[in-house]
Amino acid sequence: MAFTTQKHLTSLFEFLKIPSISAQSNHAADIQKAASWLKVKLVELGFSSSILPTKGHPVVYGELLANFNLPTVLVYGHYDVQSPDPLNEWSSGPFEPTVRAGNIYCRGVADDKGQLYTWIAAIEELQLANSMPKVNIKFLIEGEEEVGSKNLSEFVKDNRALLKADVCVISDSHCLSPNQPLIEYGLRGLTYTEVHLKTFPKDVHSGLYGGNVPNPIQILSSMISKLKDDSGKVLVPGFYDNIRRLTKTERKQLNKLPFGKDQVLEETGSLVIFGEPQFTIAERAGARPTLEINGIWGGYQGEGPKTIIPGEAWAKISMRIVPFQNSQEIFEKFKAFIKSLTPKGVLSEVKFISSAEPILLDTKAKYFKYSESAYKSIFGKTPIYGLSGGTIGVVADFKNVLGIDSILMGYGLPDDGLHSPNEKLSLAMFEKGIKTNIEFFKMF
Amino acid sequence: MAFTTQKHLTSLFEFLKIPSISAQSNHAADIQKAASWLKVKLVELGFSSSILPTKGHPVVYGELLANFNLPTVLVYGHYDVQSPDPLNEWSSGPFEPTVRAGNIYCRGVADDKGQLYTWIAAIEELQLANSMPKVNIKFLIEGEEEVGSKNLSEFVKDNRALLKADVCVISDSHCLSPNQPLIEYGLRGLTYTEVHLKTFPKDVHSGLYGGNVPNPIQILSSMISKLKDDSGKVLVPGFYDNIRRLTKTERKQLNKLPFGKDQVLEETGSLVIFGEPQFTIAERAGARPTLEINGIWGGYQGEGPKTIIPGEAWAKISMRIVPFQNSQEIFEKFKAFIKSLTPKGVLSEVKFISSAEPILLDTKAKYFKYSESAYKSIFGKTPIYGLSGGTIGVVADFKNVLGIDSILMGYGLPDDGLHSPNEKLSLAMFEKGIKTNIEFFKMF
Repeated sequence: MAFTTQKHLTSLFEFLKIPSISAQSNHAADIQKAASWLKVKLVELGFSSSILPTKGHPVVYGELLANFNLPTVLVYGHYDVQSPDPLNEWSSGPFEPTVRAGNIYCRGVADDKGQLYTWIAAIEELQLANSMPKVNIKFLIEGEEEVGSKNLSEFVKDNRALLKADVCVISDSHCLSPNQPLIEYGLRGLTYTEVHLKTFPKDVHSGLYGGNVPNPIQILSSMISKLKDDSGKVLVPGFYDNIRRLTKTERKQLNKLPFGKDQVLEETGSLVIFGEPQFTIAERAGARPTLEINGIWGGYQGEGPKTIIPGEAWAKISMRIVPFQNSQEIFEKFKAFIKSLTPKGVLSEVKFISSAEPILLDTKAKYFKYSESAYKSIFGKTPIYGLSGGTIGVVADFKNVLGIDSILMGYGLPDDGLHSPNEKLSLAMFEKGIKTNIEFFKMF
Repeated sequence: MAFTTQKHLTSLFEFLKIPSISAQSNHAADIQKAASWLKVKLVELGFSSSILPTKGHPVVYGELLANFNLPTVLVYGHYDVQSPDPLNEWSSGPFEPTVRAGNIYCRGVADDKGQLYTWIAAIEELQLANSMPKVNIKFLIEGEEEVGSKNLSEFVKDNRALLKADVCVISDSHCLSPNQPLIEYGLRGLTYTEVHLKTFPKDVHSGLYGGNVPNPIQILSSMISKLKDDSGKVLVPGFYDNIRRLTKTERKQLNKLPFGKDQVLEETGSLVIFGEPQFTIAERAGARPTLEINGIWGGYQGEGPKTIIPGEAWAKISMRIVPFQNSQEIFEKFKAFIKSLTPKGVLSEVKFISSAEPILLDTKAKYFKYSESAYKSIFGKTPIYGLSGGTIGVVADFKNVLGIDSILMGYGLPDDGLHSPNEKLSLAMFEKGIKTNIEFFKMF
């Protein structure tokens, strides 16, 4: 089925230009704008659509129901994006979609606006060709994925009937290469925290008091140094409880993935690999839980010297978790460990920021075969099954609450720079995505 | 000699309103404004005055020469101030001088504009009373004290003849209480650095790469945790080389200072004391070298979560040094230690920010007696001699280059909050300062 990409790009660019940064409250109006834009788009395609409130940013829901006897496909995506900072590292404006050398550059183009759009475009093309498949189609597009989907779990529980479906499809991941599709059957979960230390109410003079008072940065650094050992093993007591050992077959399959030292060094620009030596790189990324310091701040950060001892210090610390760890249990263990590391007379607070559960899917299920066939017909290759290091919280909710599998049909590439400056999506992958989705629908 | 304080306050407030923050280049015009204001003020008092350039912010020089056979008093002060951040902790604007409950609140009022002004006011009062002392008076007022007086050492060397004097007086310290003056005869020096770590050129996704790449915040924290042991002892190899043991008399005198646990806890608001257990609080403040983390930053510091591994992290780290440590040697030792702690494949840089040498003065010298008498007549008490934890870099230069002692006649109080929000100077101490300076001049 031939189609013109330009029409879809024009529409997608409107969507990309909206800086719908969910983590920053000064972008609340942009969040609303992005949700409204999607609703209008779905209505244009004949969907019934509503913007449904949550305790946080709203969910865009849409349905195009053919017949209640037919199977229902639920398309999940998110319209929110990460903050684009550091701004000075972008080659073009983070919210000015720009095509260069076969790629679209814009914050959110791969994660997830452009990938989500492949489903909208596929439906539009099927309608134009009068080839609509024998399925009911529902859309659930959230606005809080980048802040941990904190209200989506409750939304799914409260809207079981509305969201009833036979399978979910999600395009928010990537292929291994332009020719090798990948279906991720497992995702890591997440426990995201903020640690705050306070030793006294204001900064004090380092000459007058240096040598006699505790320094919160020194203490925070010391705590952080005790969270992992030199091999990268997490030292939070009980952290590794309950995690499964991979089967031999899984380990073998995982290590077939072309995700090794060269890829990591090239994609990140790092000069060295750092990780638990007893596991391979693919195992560490997909099957091992991790702990990372995502940010730290305290004291003077300006030009030149300022001779103070600060009274406070902060760090953002998150853990990626694997089956069968539980995000809340991990938070409690982390919090208890931080408390145990806090010296007497120093105030520490561990704030819960967001969480998501890890998930393992059954790839033997029928709709995975539909996806395999669709990929095969467009990419010429059967997808490889892999475990992802990333997190899509809603996949666990769909499994546990709606009882359905989610098929992660990603059209990104490993070097798309998600969450980084100069995020991109390949134009060719965008087109292949639309075509593969069309083929997927045709299986019904 | 009776006088009206209001007139001096009106003039001082003009000076205080100029946000002459030396560390921030966007305040360059304010630096010029403060220097010009001082020059005009000195000229009004009959001084010859010039604004003399350095490689950084200019020096204000003034001289009122009576007779070349008379002794010369050099008054040193600084017109630059610390950055006022965090701004939200100020009860009134940091550059809007405000009198509340007997105190003047403003950034720089104690450190050093208000204290410096006690000398200007004393001279003005002596002139009004037609009681000018038999001395030559010179002023040397710099604009880079808060950024480590980085160009003053060279300026003093290049202007030996101009600055020729018999004694220097400096009001940039404090009394022990409103009734107990203090003369500091030793000052700590300073080595101020910035450490920068880089693992890769941009932030990367913590899901995709977590577990496989080094985290610069983790590494920086680990480095910082190795700079001091749990008792506060600095672990930089060779750090304590060359430092002297206090004499029994000095130790006894130092421990007579009412600077103990209660003072430190009250003045800082800390709930606990932290320091080397084998030394007293006064010894740790005045006679022991220290290492402090003044600031740290890296990665995401905004609202909510951002699931990145940052590529860079920074810390401001400074050391207060004591006789007979040398600031450059300490910098080299610190740099070598950081390099030795840097893992392979990680880039580290240790930037020199500023330095000052420690100093010990001979309190037996004649002009110290003048100062003692002046204090006695106004405060009713002889000053106590102490070792200061603070740093005034120029004191070592005056000793080494001009061959003169500096008498630190401070009129602040220990809780003035130098370098902190809500910096203050007591109105009563401001008046006592003017009167004591008048008495000091009358000794000649």
